[in-house]
Amino acid sequence: MLQAKIFIRLKPNVLDPQGKAVSNSLHQLGYVKVVETRVSKYIEISFDDDNEQAVEEQVQKICADLLANPNTENFTYTIEKMGTV
Amino acid sequence: MLQAKIFIRLKPNVLDPQGKAVSNSLHQLGYVKVVETRVSKYIEISFDDDNEQAVEEQVQKICADLLANPNTENFTYTIEKMGTV
Repeated sequence: MLQAKIFIRLKPNVLDPQGKAVSNSLHQLGYVKVVETRVSKYIEISFDDDNEQAVEEQVQKICADLLANPNTENFTYTIEKMGTV
Repeated sequence: MLQAKIFIRLKPNVLDPQGKAVSNSLHQLGYVKVVETRVSKYIEISFDDDNEQAVEEQVQKICADLLANPNTENFTYTIEKMGTV
Protein backbone atom coordinates (compact mmCIF):
# COMPACT_ATOMS: atom_id res chain seq x y z
CA MET A 1 0.00 0.00 0.00
CA LEU A 2 1.23 3.45 -0.92
CA GLN A 3 -0.32 6.75 -0.01
CA ALA A 4 -0.06 10.00 -1.94
CA LYS A 5 -0.26 13.17 0.15
CA ILE A 6 -1.28 15.97 -2.18
CA PHE A 7 -1.44 19.72 -1.62
CA ILE A 8 -3.53 21.77 -4.04
CA ARG A 9 -2.79 25.46 -3.51
CA LEU A 10 -3.88 28.61 -5.26
CA LYS A 11 -1.04 30.16 -7.20
CA PRO A 12 0.59 32.93 -5.15
CA ASN A 13 -0.75 35.73 -7.33
CA VAL A 14 -4.33 34.41 -7.33
CA LEU A 15 -6.78 35.99 -4.88
CA ASP A 16 -8.13 33.61 -2.25
CA PRO A 17 -11.66 34.76 -1.35
CA GLN A 18 -12.12 31.97 1.19
CA GLY A 19 -8.87 32.91 2.91
CA LYS A 20 -9.86 36.57 2.82
CA ALA A 21 -13.17 35.71 4.46
CA VAL A 22 -11.36 33.85 7.25
CA SER A 23 -8.96 36.79 7.75
CA ASN A 24 -11.89 39.21 7.97
CA SER A 25 -13.69 37.02 10.52
CA LEU A 26 -10.53 36.74 12.59
CA HIS A 27 -10.00 40.50 12.57
CA GLN A 28 -13.59 41.05 13.69
CA LEU A 29 -13.05 38.53 16.50
CA GLY A 30 -10.07 40.55 17.70
CA TYR A 31 -7.18 38.59 16.17
CA VAL A 32 -5.58 41.78 14.91
CA LYS A 33 -2.12 40.27 14.33
CA VAL A 34 -3.40 38.06 11.51
CA VAL A 35 -1.86 39.26 8.23
CA GLU A 36 -2.99 36.71 5.66
CA THR A 37 -4.84 33.43 5.41
CA ARG A 38 -4.57 30.98 2.53
CA VAL A 39 -6.94 28.03 2.27
CA SER A 40 -5.76 25.00 0.31
CA LYS A 41 -6.85 21.43 -0.23
CA TYR A 42 -4.98 18.48 1.19
CA ILE A 43 -5.88 15.14 -0.34
CA GLU A 44 -4.69 11.68 0.65
CA ILE A 45 -5.11 8.89 -1.89
CA SER A 46 -4.32 5.30 -0.92
CA PHE A 47 -3.25 2.84 -3.61
CA ASP A 48 -3.30 -0.94 -3.45
CA ASP A 49 0.03 -0.98 -5.23
CA ASP A 50 3.67 -1.09 -4.07
CA ASN A 51 5.25 0.17 -7.27
CA GLU A 52 6.29 3.70 -6.38
CA GLN A 53 7.08 4.71 -9.92
CA ALA A 54 3.73 3.52 -11.28
CA VAL A 55 1.86 5.25 -8.46
CA GLU A 56 3.80 8.48 -8.95
CA GLU A 57 2.95 8.55 -12.65
CA GLN A 58 -0.70 8.09 -11.80
CA VAL A 59 -0.66 10.75 -9.09
CA GLN A 60 0.99 13.25 -11.42
CA LYS A 61 -1.71 12.63 -13.99
CA ILE A 62 -4.56 12.65 -11.46
CA CYS A 63 -3.43 16.01 -10.08
CA ALA A 64 -2.94 17.60 -13.49
CA ASP A 65 -6.11 16.22 -15.09
CA LEU A 66 -8.61 16.02 -12.24
CA LEU A 67 -7.71 17.65 -8.95
CA ALA A 68 -5.97 20.93 -9.74
CA ASN A 69 -7.19 23.73 -11.94
CA PRO A 70 -4.12 24.53 -14.06
CA ASN A 71 -5.22 28.15 -14.47
CA THR A 72 -5.30 29.00 -10.79
CA GLU A 73 -3.73 26.19 -8.78
CA ASN A 74 -0.41 24.48 -8.19
CA PHE A 75 0.03 21.03 -6.75
CA THR A 76 2.76 19.26 -4.82
CA TYR A 77 2.77 15.71 -3.50
CA THR A 78 4.76 13.11 -1.65
CA ILE A 79 4.29 9.35 -1.88
CA GLU A 80 4.78 7.27 1.24
CA LYS A 81 4.56 3.65 2.27
CA MET A 82 1.53 2.98 4.42
CA GLY A 83 1.80 0.84 7.51
CA THR A 84 -1.05 -1.56 8.10
CA VAL A 85 -3.18 0.20 10.69
CA MET B 1 6.39 36.93 11.41
CA LEU B 2 5.12 33.50 12.32
CA GLN B 3 3.02 31.21 10.18
CA ALA B 4 0.60 28.56 11.39
CA LYS B 5 0.16 25.56 9.09
CA ILE B 6 -3.14 23.96 9.98
CA PHE B 7 -4.68 20.67 8.85
CA ILE B 8 -8.42 20.22 9.32
CA ARG B 9 -9.33 16.58 8.73
CA LEU B 10 -12.52 14.62 9.05
CA LYS B 11 -12.38 12.24 12.00
CA PRO B 12 -11.41 8.74 10.81
CA ASN B 13 -14.86 7.26 11.41
CA VAL B 14 -16.69 10.09 9.59
CA LEU B 15 -17.71 9.46 6.00
CA ASP B 16 -16.05 11.76 3.46
CA PRO B 17 -18.51 12.25 0.56
CA GLN B 18 -16.09 14.52 -1.33
CA GLY B 19 -13.34 11.91 -1.05
CA LYS B 20 -15.77 9.19 -2.08
CA ALA B 21 -16.72 11.23 -5.16
CA VAL B 22 -13.04 11.58 -6.12
CA SER B 23 -12.49 7.83 -5.64
CA ASN B 24 -15.49 7.05 -7.84
CA SER B 25 -14.28 9.39 -10.57
CA LEU B 26 -10.81 7.85 -10.45
CA HIS B 27 -12.21 4.32 -10.71
CA GLN B 28 -14.28 5.36 -13.72
CA LEU B 29 -11.18 6.86 -15.30
CA GLY B 30 -9.40 3.52 -14.93
CA TYR B 31 -7.38 4.12 -11.76
CA VAL B 32 -8.47 0.81 -10.34
CA LYS B 33 -5.74 0.58 -7.68
CA VAL B 34 -7.16 3.56 -5.77
CA VAL B 35 -8.51 2.31 -2.44
CA GLU B 36 -9.53 5.43 -0.57
CA THR B 37 -9.41 9.20 -0.90
CA ARG B 38 -9.71 11.66 1.98
CA VAL B 39 -10.11 15.36 1.31
CA SER B 40 -8.99 17.76 4.04
CA LYS B 41 -8.38 21.48 4.41
CA TYR B 42 -4.93 22.96 4.77
CA ILE B 43 -4.87 26.53 6.04
CA GLU B 44 -1.90 28.83 6.42
CA ILE B 45 -2.31 31.87 8.69
CA SER B 46 0.44 34.47 8.90
CA PHE B 47 0.82 36.53 12.08
CA ASP B 48 2.63 39.81 12.48
CA ASP B 49 3.93 38.59 15.84
CA ASP B 50 7.12 36.80 16.94
CA ASN B 51 5.83 35.48 20.24
CA GLU B 52 5.38 31.78 19.54
CA GLN B 53 3.47 31.08 22.72
CA ALA B 54 0.97 33.89 22.13
CA VAL B 55 0.47 32.80 18.51
CA GLU B 56 0.02 29.17 19.49
CA GLU B 57 -2.67 30.08 22.02
CA GLN B 58 -4.49 32.06 19.33
CA VAL B 59 -4.17 29.28 16.75
CA GLN B 60 -5.50 26.70 19.19
CA LYS B 61 -8.53 28.88 19.86
CA ILE B 62 -9.04 29.81 16.18
CA CYS B 63 -9.06 26.14 15.19
CA ALA B 64 -11.38 25.05 17.97
CA ASP B 65 -13.81 27.98 17.71
CA LEU B 66 -13.83 28.87 14.03
CA LEU B 67 -12.13 26.51 11.60
CA ALA B 68 -12.90 22.97 12.73
CA ASN B 69 -16.29 21.44 13.39
CA PRO B 70 -15.73 19.65 16.71
CA ASN B 71 -18.39 17.06 15.88
CA THR B 72 -16.78 15.79 12.73
CA GLU B 73 -13.28 17.20 12.39
CA ASN B 74 -9.86 17.06 14.04
CA PHE B 75 -7.16 19.64 13.65
CA THR B 76 -3.39 19.62 13.89
CA TYR B 77 -0.98 22.49 13.36
CA THR B 78 2.62 23.56 13.39
CA ILE B 79 3.92 27.08 13.89
CA GLU B 80 6.98 28.19 11.97
CA LYS B 81 9.09 31.29 11.57
CA MET B 82 8.54 32.93 8.21
CA GLY B 83 11.45 34.20 6.19
CA THR B 84 10.96 37.53 4.48
CA VAL B 85 10.13 36.57 0.91
